[in-house]
Amino acid sequence: MRVHEAVESPSDEAPVESARRQRTRERLVDAAYEVFAEFGVHAASVEQISERAGFTRGAFYSNFDSKEELFFALESRENQLRLDRLEAGLQAVSPSLLDAAGRYTEGSLEALIRAFLELQPDDRRWCLVQSEFRMLAMRDADVAARYLQHQESAGRQLAAWLDQAAGLAHVRFTIPTPDIANIVVALYESAIQTAVLMDPDGDEGSPRELAMRTLPAIVRALTESVTE
Amino acid sequence: MRVHEAVESPSDEAPVESARRQRTRERLVDAAYEVFAEFGVHAASVEQISERAGFTRGAFYSNFDSKEELFFALESRENQLRLDRLEAGLQAVSPSLLDAAGRYTEGSLEALIRAFLELQPDDRRWCLVQSEFRMLAMRDADVAARYLQHQESAGRQLAAWLDQAAGLAHVRFTIPTPDIANIVVALYESAIQTAVLMDPDGDEGSPRELAMRTLPAIVRALTESVTE
Repeated sequence: MRVHEAVESPSDEAPVESARRQRTRERLVDAAYEVFAEFGVHAASVEQISERAGFTRGAFYSNFDSKEELFFALESRENQLRLDRLEAGLQAVSPSLLDAAGRYTEGSLEALIRAFLELQPDDRRWCLVQSEFRMLAMRDADVAARYLQHQESAGRQLAAWLDQAAGLAHVRFTIPTPDIANIVVALYESAIQTAVLMDPDGDEGSPRELAMRTLPAIVRALTESVTE
Repeated sequence: MRVHEAVESPSDEAPVESARRQRTRERLVDAAYEVFAEFGVHAASVEQISERAGFTRGAFYSNFDSKEELFFALESRENQLRLDRLEAGLQAVSPSLLDAAGRYTEGSLEALIRAFLELQPDDRRWCLVQSEFRMLAMRDADVAARYLQHQESAGRQLAAWLDQAAGLAHVRFTIPTPDIANIVVALYESAIQTAVLMDPDGDEGSPRELAMRTLPAIVRALTESVTE
Protein backbone atom coordinates (compact mmCIF):
# COMPACT_ATOMS: atom_id res chain seq x y z
CA MET A 1 0.00 0.00 0.00
CA ARG A 2 1.31 3.43 -0.95
CA VAL A 3 1.84 5.76 1.99
CA HIS A 4 1.36 9.48 1.40
CA GLU A 5 2.91 12.10 3.61
CA ALA A 6 0.32 14.84 3.45
CA VAL A 7 1.01 17.57 5.96
CA GLU A 8 -0.74 20.82 5.21
CA SER A 9 -0.89 23.67 7.67
CA PRO A 10 -4.35 25.17 8.15
CA SER A 11 -2.86 28.67 7.72
CA ASP A 12 -1.66 27.79 4.20
CA GLU A 13 -5.05 27.37 2.53
CA ALA A 14 -4.36 28.06 -1.15
CA PRO A 15 -7.19 26.54 -3.25
CA VAL A 16 -5.03 23.64 -4.56
CA GLU A 17 -3.74 22.80 -1.10
CA SER A 18 -7.25 23.09 0.24
CA ALA A 19 -8.62 20.62 -2.32
CA ARG A 20 -5.79 18.19 -1.62
CA ARG A 21 -6.39 18.53 2.11
CA GLN A 22 -10.08 17.88 1.54
CA ARG A 23 -9.29 14.67 -0.40
CA THR A 24 -6.94 13.50 2.38
CA ARG A 25 -9.64 14.08 4.98
CA GLU A 26 -12.24 12.26 2.83
CA ARG A 27 -9.97 9.23 2.48
CA LEU A 28 -9.36 9.14 6.23
CA VAL A 29 -13.10 9.37 6.88
CA ASP A 30 -13.79 6.54 4.39
CA ALA A 31 -11.09 4.39 6.00
CA ALA A 32 -12.39 5.13 9.50
CA TYR A 33 -15.90 4.02 8.55
CA GLU A 34 -14.53 0.69 7.23
CA VAL A 35 -12.28 0.09 10.24
CA PHE A 36 -14.99 1.10 12.75
CA ALA A 37 -17.48 -1.27 11.10
CA GLU A 38 -14.98 -4.12 10.85
CA PHE A 39 -13.25 -4.05 14.26
CA GLY A 40 -15.59 -1.89 16.37
CA VAL A 41 -15.22 1.77 17.29
CA HIS A 42 -13.74 0.82 20.67
CA ALA A 43 -10.99 -1.38 19.22
CA ALA A 44 -10.17 0.73 16.13
CA SER A 45 -6.84 2.57 16.40
CA VAL A 46 -5.47 5.67 14.67
CA GLU A 47 -2.72 3.42 13.25
CA GLN A 48 -5.25 1.04 11.65
CA ILE A 49 -7.24 3.91 10.15
CA SER A 50 -4.16 5.69 8.77
CA GLU A 51 -2.84 2.47 7.28
CA ARG A 52 -6.20 1.62 5.68
CA ALA A 53 -6.27 5.10 4.07
CA GLY A 54 -2.65 4.73 2.91
CA PHE A 55 -1.33 7.58 5.06
CA THR A 56 1.15 7.90 7.93
CA ARG A 57 0.12 8.64 11.51
CA GLY A 58 1.65 12.09 10.91
CA ALA A 59 -0.78 12.74 8.08
CA PHE A 60 -3.64 11.63 10.34
CA TYR A 61 -2.69 14.04 13.10
CA SER A 62 -2.20 16.96 10.71
CA ASN A 63 -5.89 16.51 9.81
CA PHE A 64 -7.60 15.27 12.97
CA ASP A 65 -6.76 15.67 16.65
CA SER A 66 -8.10 12.25 17.63
CA LYS A 67 -10.15 9.22 16.65
CA GLU A 68 -13.14 11.00 18.21
CA GLU A 69 -12.72 14.08 16.02
CA LEU A 70 -12.55 11.81 12.97
CA PHE A 71 -15.79 10.15 14.09
CA PHE A 72 -17.51 13.54 14.25
CA ALA A 73 -16.39 14.30 10.67
CA LEU A 74 -17.83 10.93 9.61
CA GLU A 75 -21.04 11.61 11.52
CA SER A 76 -21.52 15.06 9.93
CA ARG A 77 -21.10 13.51 6.50
CA GLU A 78 -23.50 10.62 7.18
CA ASN A 79 -26.13 12.89 8.74
CA GLN A 80 -25.89 15.30 5.81
CA LEU A 81 -26.23 12.40 3.36
CA ARG A 82 -29.43 11.28 5.10
CA LEU A 83 -30.88 14.80 5.29
CA ASP A 84 -30.11 15.44 1.59
CA ARG A 85 -31.85 12.19 0.67
CA LEU A 86 -34.85 13.10 2.83
CA GLU A 87 -35.01 16.55 1.25
CA ALA A 88 -34.90 15.17 -2.28
CA GLY A 89 -37.32 12.38 -1.38
CA LEU A 90 -39.89 14.80 -0.03
CA GLN A 91 -40.12 16.53 -3.40
CA ALA A 92 -40.63 13.16 -5.10
CA VAL A 93 -43.26 11.83 -2.70
CA SER A 94 -45.26 15.03 -2.16
CA PRO A 95 -47.60 14.64 -5.19
CA SER A 96 -48.88 11.33 -3.74
CA LEU A 97 -49.73 12.85 -0.35
CA LEU A 98 -52.87 14.65 -1.44
CA ASP A 99 -55.76 13.56 -3.59
CA ALA A 100 -56.59 15.08 -7.01
CA ALA A 101 -58.37 18.00 -5.36
CA GLY A 102 -55.30 18.76 -3.22
CA ARG A 103 -56.89 17.42 -0.04
CA TYR A 104 -55.25 15.39 2.70
CA THR A 105 -55.99 11.66 2.38
CA GLU A 106 -56.06 8.95 5.01
CA GLY A 107 -53.00 7.28 3.46
CA SER A 108 -50.85 10.44 3.40
CA LEU A 109 -49.02 9.87 6.65
CA GLU A 110 -48.34 6.20 5.97
CA ALA A 111 -46.98 7.14 2.54
CA LEU A 112 -44.78 9.79 4.13
CA ILE A 113 -43.43 7.49 6.83
CA ARG A 114 -42.75 4.71 4.34
CA ALA A 115 -40.94 7.21 2.12
CA PHE A 116 -38.93 8.41 5.15
CA LEU A 117 -37.87 4.84 5.93
CA GLU A 118 -37.11 3.99 2.31
CA LEU A 119 -34.85 7.03 2.08
CA GLN A 120 -32.49 5.69 4.77
CA PRO A 121 -29.37 4.19 3.14
CA ASP A 122 -27.19 1.33 4.47
CA ASP A 123 -28.39 1.76 8.03
CA ARG A 124 -27.26 -1.44 9.73
CA ARG A 125 -23.58 -0.60 9.40
CA TRP A 126 -24.12 3.05 10.34
CA CYS A 127 -26.33 2.14 13.29
CA LEU A 128 -23.68 -0.23 14.64
CA VAL A 129 -20.88 2.35 14.34
CA GLN A 130 -22.96 5.19 15.76
CA SER A 131 -24.27 3.13 18.67
CA GLU A 132 -20.76 1.98 19.55
CA PHE A 133 -19.49 5.55 19.47
CA ARG A 134 -22.32 6.66 21.77
CA MET A 135 -21.17 4.03 24.28
CA LEU A 136 -17.68 5.58 24.23
CA ALA A 137 -19.21 9.05 24.65
CA MET A 138 -21.24 7.84 27.65
CA ARG A 139 -17.92 7.14 29.40
CA ASP A 140 -16.16 10.43 28.51
CA ALA A 141 -17.72 13.77 29.54
CA ASP A 142 -15.88 15.87 26.89
CA VAL A 143 -16.81 13.55 24.04
CA ALA A 144 -20.37 13.34 25.44
CA ALA A 145 -20.79 17.13 25.31
CA ARG A 146 -19.72 17.27 21.65
CA TYR A 147 -21.82 14.22 20.80
CA LEU A 148 -24.92 15.91 22.25
CA GLN A 149 -24.20 19.09 20.24
CA HIS A 150 -24.04 17.04 17.02
CA GLN A 151 -27.22 15.15 17.94
CA GLU A 152 -29.08 18.39 18.69
CA SER A 153 -28.02 19.91 15.39
CA ALA A 154 -29.15 16.79 13.49
CA GLY A 155 -32.38 16.78 15.53
CA ARG A 156 -33.15 20.39 14.57
CA GLN A 157 -32.65 19.58 10.89
CA LEU A 158 -34.87 16.51 11.13
CA ALA A 159 -37.52 18.57 12.96
CA ALA A 160 -37.46 21.16 10.15
CA TRP A 161 -37.95 18.37 7.61
CA LEU A 162 -40.81 16.89 9.65
CA ASP A 163 -42.58 20.28 9.80
CA GLN A 164 -42.17 20.65 6.05
CA ALA A 165 -43.49 17.12 5.45
CA ALA A 166 -46.43 17.66 7.81
CA GLY A 167 -47.29 20.86 5.95
CA LEU A 168 -47.33 18.99 2.64
CA ALA A 169 -49.62 16.33 4.13
CA HIS A 170 -51.91 19.07 5.57
CA VAL A 171 -51.39 17.94 9.16
CA ARG A 172 -49.66 19.36 12.23
CA PHE A 173 -48.06 17.72 15.25
CA THR A 174 -49.83 17.93 18.60
CA ILE A 175 -46.55 17.92 20.60
CA PRO A 176 -43.38 19.98 19.80
CA THR A 177 -41.69 18.79 16.59
CA PRO A 178 -38.25 18.28 18.26
CA ASP A 179 -39.95 15.75 20.55
CA ILE A 180 -41.44 14.04 17.47
CA ALA A 181 -37.92 13.95 15.95
CA ASN A 182 -36.54 12.32 19.13
CA ILE A 183 -39.32 9.72 19.08
CA VAL A 184 -38.75 8.89 15.40
CA VAL A 185 -34.97 8.56 15.88
CA ALA A 186 -35.28 6.44 19.06
CA LEU A 187 -37.81 4.05 17.52
CA TYR A 188 -35.98 3.76 14.21
CA GLU A 189 -32.65 3.08 15.96
CA SER A 190 -34.31 0.49 18.16
CA ALA A 191 -35.79 -1.18 15.05
CA ILE A 192 -32.39 -1.30 13.30
CA GLN A 193 -30.68 -2.67 16.40
CA THR A 194 -33.29 -5.44 16.65
CA ALA A 195 -32.87 -6.16 12.91
CA VAL A 196 -29.08 -6.45 13.33
CA LEU A 197 -29.54 -8.76 16.32
CA MET A 198 -32.00 -10.90 14.31
CA ASP A 199 -29.83 -11.09 11.21
CA PRO A 200 -26.52 -9.18 11.07
CA ASP A 201 -26.06 -9.71 7.32
CA GLY A 202 -29.73 -9.61 6.35
CA ASP A 203 -31.23 -7.50 3.62
CA GLU A 204 -32.38 -3.95 4.25
CA GLY A 205 -36.11 -4.69 4.39
CA SER A 206 -36.43 -5.87 7.95
CA PRO A 207 -35.70 -2.71 10.03
CA ARG A 208 -38.18 -0.86 7.84
CA GLU A 209 -40.89 -3.46 8.49
CA LEU A 210 -40.16 -3.43 12.22
CA ALA A 211 -40.41 0.37 12.31
CA MET A 212 -43.64 0.31 10.26
CA ARG A 213 -45.25 -1.73 13.06
CA THR A 214 -45.23 1.26 15.43
CA LEU A 215 -44.25 4.52 13.71
CA PRO A 216 -47.43 5.09 11.65
CA ALA A 217 -49.72 4.55 14.66
CA ILE A 218 -47.63 6.91 16.79
CA VAL A 219 -47.34 9.63 14.19
CA ARG A 220 -51.04 9.39 13.35
CA ALA A 221 -51.88 9.64 17.05
CA LEU A 222 -49.67 12.71 17.48
CA THR A 223 -50.93 14.69 14.48
CA GLU A 224 -54.17 16.43 13.63
CA SER A 225 -55.58 17.43 10.29
CA VAL A 226 -55.25 21.11 9.31
CA THR A 227 -58.48 22.27 7.73
CA GLU A 228 -58.22 25.44 5.69
CA MET B 1 -8.40 -10.63 49.18
CA ARG B 2 -9.37 -14.13 50.25
CA VAL B 3 -9.63 -16.53 47.33
CA HIS B 4 -12.20 -19.31 47.58
CA GLU B 5 -11.93 -22.48 45.57
CA ALA B 6 -15.58 -23.32 45.05
CA VAL B 7 -16.00 -26.13 42.56
CA GLU B 8 -19.39 -27.83 42.72
CA SER B 9 -20.59 -30.26 40.13
CA PRO B 10 -24.15 -29.66 38.89
CA SER B 11 -24.93 -33.37 39.44
CA ASP B 12 -24.17 -33.06 43.15
CA GLU B 13 -27.04 -30.82 44.20
CA ALA B 14 -27.53 -31.56 47.87
CA PRO B 15 -29.41 -28.65 49.52
CA VAL B 16 -26.34 -27.32 51.36
CA GLU B 17 -24.18 -27.54 48.27
CA SER B 18 -26.93 -25.92 46.27
CA ALA B 19 -27.21 -22.96 48.64
CA ARG B 20 -23.44 -22.51 48.64
CA ARG B 21 -23.41 -22.67 44.87
CA GLN B 22 -26.16 -20.06 44.76
CA ARG B 23 -24.12 -17.72 46.99
CA THR B 24 -21.04 -18.19 44.80
CA ARG B 25 -23.05 -17.33 41.71
CA GLU B 26 -24.57 -14.28 43.41
CA ARG B 27 -21.14 -12.98 44.37
CA LEU B 28 -19.88 -13.45 40.82
CA VAL B 29 -22.93 -11.63 39.44
CA ASP B 30 -22.41 -8.74 41.92
CA ALA B 31 -18.73 -8.53 40.98
CA ALA B 32 -19.52 -8.62 37.26
CA TYR B 33 -21.95 -5.72 37.59
CA GLU B 34 -19.27 -3.64 39.33
CA VAL B 35 -16.51 -4.53 36.86
CA PHE B 36 -18.80 -4.03 33.82
CA ALA B 37 -19.84 -0.59 35.08
CA GLU B 38 -16.29 0.42 35.99
CA PHE B 39 -14.29 -0.78 32.98
CA GLY B 40 -16.93 -1.41 30.32
CA VAL B 41 -18.47 -4.75 29.29
CA HIS B 42 -16.11 -4.97 26.33
CA ALA B 43 -12.93 -4.54 28.40
CA ALA B 44 -14.03 -6.56 31.46
CA SER B 45 -12.27 -9.94 31.74
CA VAL B 46 -13.19 -13.17 33.51
CA GLU B 47 -9.98 -12.71 35.56
CA GLN B 48 -11.05 -9.26 36.77
CA ILE B 49 -14.53 -10.48 37.68
CA SER B 50 -13.27 -13.58 39.53
CA GLU B 51 -10.70 -11.53 41.45
CA ARG B 52 -13.29 -8.89 42.41
CA ALA B 53 -15.54 -11.65 43.77
CA GLY B 54 -12.64 -13.25 45.62
CA PHE B 55 -12.69 -16.47 43.60
CA THR B 56 -10.32 -18.24 41.24
CA ARG B 57 -10.90 -18.52 37.50
CA GLY B 58 -11.63 -22.21 38.18
CA ALA B 59 -14.51 -21.24 40.45
CA PHE B 60 -15.80 -18.89 37.76
CA TYR B 61 -15.82 -21.58 35.10
CA SER B 62 -17.47 -24.14 37.37
CA ASN B 63 -20.41 -21.70 37.57
CA PHE B 64 -20.52 -19.92 34.21
CA ASP B 65 -19.32 -20.91 30.75
CA SER B 66 -18.36 -17.38 29.72
CA LYS B 67 -18.56 -13.67 30.45
CA GLU B 68 -21.66 -13.62 28.25
CA GLU B 69 -23.43 -16.29 30.30
CA LEU B 70 -22.64 -14.31 33.45
CA PHE B 71 -24.15 -11.21 31.83
CA PHE B 72 -27.37 -13.11 31.13
CA ALA B 73 -27.57 -14.15 34.81
CA LEU B 74 -27.10 -10.49 35.77
CA GLU B 75 -29.73 -9.41 33.25
CA SER B 76 -32.30 -11.93 34.50
CA ARG B 77 -31.76 -10.68 38.04
CA GLU B 78 -32.01 -6.98 37.08
CA ASN B 79 -35.10 -7.53 34.91
CA GLN B 80 -36.79 -9.50 37.67
CA LEU B 81 -35.95 -6.75 40.18
CA ARG B 82 -37.61 -4.16 37.92
CA LEU B 83 -40.67 -6.31 37.26
CA ASP B 84 -41.11 -7.06 40.97
CA ARG B 85 -40.95 -3.34 41.75
CA LEU B 86 -43.45 -2.57 38.99
CA GLU B 87 -45.78 -5.27 40.30
CA ALA B 88 -45.61 -3.97 43.87
CA GLY B 89 -45.88 -0.37 42.68
CA LEU B 90 -49.04 -1.05 40.72
CA GLN B 91 -50.83 -2.18 43.87
CA ALA B 92 -49.72 1.01 45.63
CA VAL B 93 -50.69 3.43 42.87
CA SER B 94 -53.94 1.84 41.75
CA PRO B 95 -56.23 3.61 44.26
CA SER B 96 -55.16 7.00 42.81
CA LEU B 97 -56.03 6.01 39.22
CA LEU B 98 -59.79 6.30 39.56
CA ASP B 99 -61.94 8.93 41.17
CA ALA B 100 -64.12 8.33 44.24
CA ALA B 101 -66.87 6.82 42.08
CA GLY B 102 -64.40 4.34 40.53
CA ARG B 103 -64.29 6.17 37.21
CA TYR B 104 -61.32 6.78 34.99
CA THR B 105 -59.90 10.33 35.40
CA GLU B 106 -57.94 12.45 32.95
CA GLY B 107 -54.85 12.24 35.16
CA SER B 108 -54.89 8.43 35.49
CA LEU B 109 -52.44 7.71 32.69
CA GLU B 110 -49.98 10.41 33.72
CA ALA B 111 -50.08 9.10 37.28
CA LEU B 112 -49.47 5.58 35.97
CA ILE B 113 -46.55 6.58 33.74
CA ARG B 114 -44.96 8.67 36.47
CA ALA B 115 -45.32 5.72 38.84
CA PHE B 116 -43.76 3.43 36.20
CA LEU B 117 -40.76 5.77 35.85
CA GLU B 118 -40.38 6.29 39.60
CA LEU B 119 -40.27 2.53 40.06
CA GLN B 120 -37.08 2.18 37.98
CA PRO B 121 -34.04 1.83 40.29
CA ASP B 122 -30.43 2.94 39.56
CA ASP B 123 -30.97 3.03 35.83
CA ARG B 124 -27.96 4.99 34.55
CA ARG B 125 -25.50 2.28 35.54
CA TRP B 126 -27.75 -0.52 34.31
CA CYS B 127 -28.50 1.28 31.04
CA LEU B 128 -24.77 1.72 30.37
CA VAL B 129 -23.97 -1.95 31.05
CA GLN B 130 -26.95 -3.26 29.10
CA SER B 131 -26.32 -0.99 26.10
CA GLU B 132 -22.66 -2.01 26.00
CA PHE B 133 -23.61 -5.66 26.11
CA ARG B 134 -26.08 -5.18 23.25
CA MET B 135 -23.21 -3.77 21.17
CA LEU B 136 -21.23 -6.97 21.80
CA ALA B 137 -24.29 -9.03 20.89
CA MET B 138 -24.70 -7.10 17.63
CA ARG B 139 -21.28 -8.45 16.60
CA ASP B 140 -21.84 -12.10 17.62
CA ALA B 141 -24.73 -14.07 16.11
CA ASP B 142 -24.90 -16.68 18.93
CA VAL B 143 -24.94 -14.07 21.68
CA ALA B 144 -27.44 -12.03 19.65
CA ALA B 145 -29.89 -14.95 19.46
CA ARG B 146 -29.78 -15.44 23.24
CA TYR B 147 -30.00 -11.69 23.86
CA LEU B 148 -33.16 -11.49 21.74
CA GLN B 149 -34.71 -14.42 23.65
CA HIS B 150 -34.08 -12.62 26.95
CA GLN B 151 -35.46 -9.36 25.55
CA GLU B 152 -38.59 -11.08 24.27
CA SER B 153 -39.20 -12.74 27.61
CA ALA B 154 -38.80 -9.41 29.44
CA GLY B 155 -41.02 -7.74 26.82
CA ARG B 156 -43.80 -10.28 27.41
CA GLN B 157 -43.67 -9.67 31.15
CA LEU B 158 -43.75 -5.89 30.67
CA ALA B 159 -46.67 -6.24 28.25
CA ALA B 160 -48.60 -8.27 30.85
CA TRP B 161 -47.95 -5.52 33.42
CA LEU B 162 -49.07 -2.84 30.95
CA ASP B 163 -52.34 -4.70 30.24
CA GLN B 164 -52.95 -5.03 33.96
CA ALA B 165 -52.18 -1.32 34.50
CA ALA B 166 -54.42 -0.29 31.59
CA GLY B 167 -57.25 -2.36 33.07
CA LEU B 168 -56.89 -0.59 36.41
CA ALA B 169 -57.00 2.80 34.65
CA HIS B 170 -60.09 1.69 32.65
CA VAL B 171 -58.34 2.16 29.29
CA ARG B 172 -57.12 -0.18 26.56
CA PHE B 173 -54.34 0.12 24.00
CA THR B 174 -55.23 0.73 20.35
CA ILE B 175 -52.18 -1.20 19.06
CA PRO B 176 -50.88 -4.59 20.32
CA THR B 177 -49.48 -4.35 23.87
CA PRO B 178 -46.10 -5.92 22.92
CA ASP B 179 -45.64 -2.99 20.50
CA ILE B 180 -46.49 -0.57 23.33
CA ALA B 181 -43.89 -2.35 25.50
CA ASN B 182 -41.26 -1.94 22.75
CA ILE B 183 -42.08 1.76 22.41
CA VAL B 184 -41.89 2.36 26.17
CA VAL B 185 -38.55 0.52 26.46
CA ALA B 186 -37.01 2.27 23.41
CA LEU B 187 -38.03 5.74 24.57
CA TYR B 188 -37.04 5.15 28.17
CA GLU B 189 -33.63 3.80 27.15
CA SER B 190 -33.11 6.74 24.84
CA ALA B 191 -34.01 9.13 27.69
CA ILE B 192 -31.53 7.47 30.06
CA GLN B 193 -28.77 7.51 27.44
CA THR B 194 -29.32 11.22 26.86
CA ALA B 195 -29.31 11.82 30.62
CA VAL B 196 -25.99 9.95 30.99
CA LEU B 197 -24.51 11.97 28.10
CA MET B 198 -25.71 15.20 29.72
CA ASP B 199 -24.45 14.36 33.18
CA PRO B 200 -22.80 10.98 33.84
CA ASP B 201 -22.86 11.35 37.63
CA GLY B 202 -26.08 13.35 37.91
CA ASP B 203 -28.99 12.54 40.14
CA GLU B 204 -31.76 10.19 39.09
CA GLY B 205 -34.38 12.83 38.27
CA SER B 206 -33.31 13.79 34.81
CA PRO B 207 -34.06 10.65 32.72
CA ARG B 208 -37.52 10.60 34.26
CA GLU B 209 -38.17 14.21 33.26
CA LEU B 210 -36.88 13.56 29.72
CA ALA B 211 -39.15 10.54 29.37
CA MET B 212 -42.12 12.47 30.77
CA ARG B 213 -41.79 14.89 27.83
CA THR B 214 -42.95 12.28 25.33
CA LEU B 215 -44.27 9.11 27.04
CA PRO B 216 -47.57 10.51 28.39
CA ALA B 217 -48.55 12.03 25.03
CA ILE B 218 -47.73 8.80 23.21
CA VAL B 219 -49.49 6.51 25.65
CA ARG B 220 -52.53 8.79 25.77
CA ALA B 221 -52.62 8.84 21.96
CA LEU B 222 -52.43 5.05 21.80
CA THR B 223 -55.13 4.28 24.37
CA GLU B 224 -58.87 4.64 24.46
CA SER B 225 -61.23 4.79 27.39
CA VAL B 226 -63.19 1.60 28.19
CA THR B 227 -66.77 2.50 29.05
CA GLU B 228 -68.69 -0.15 30.92
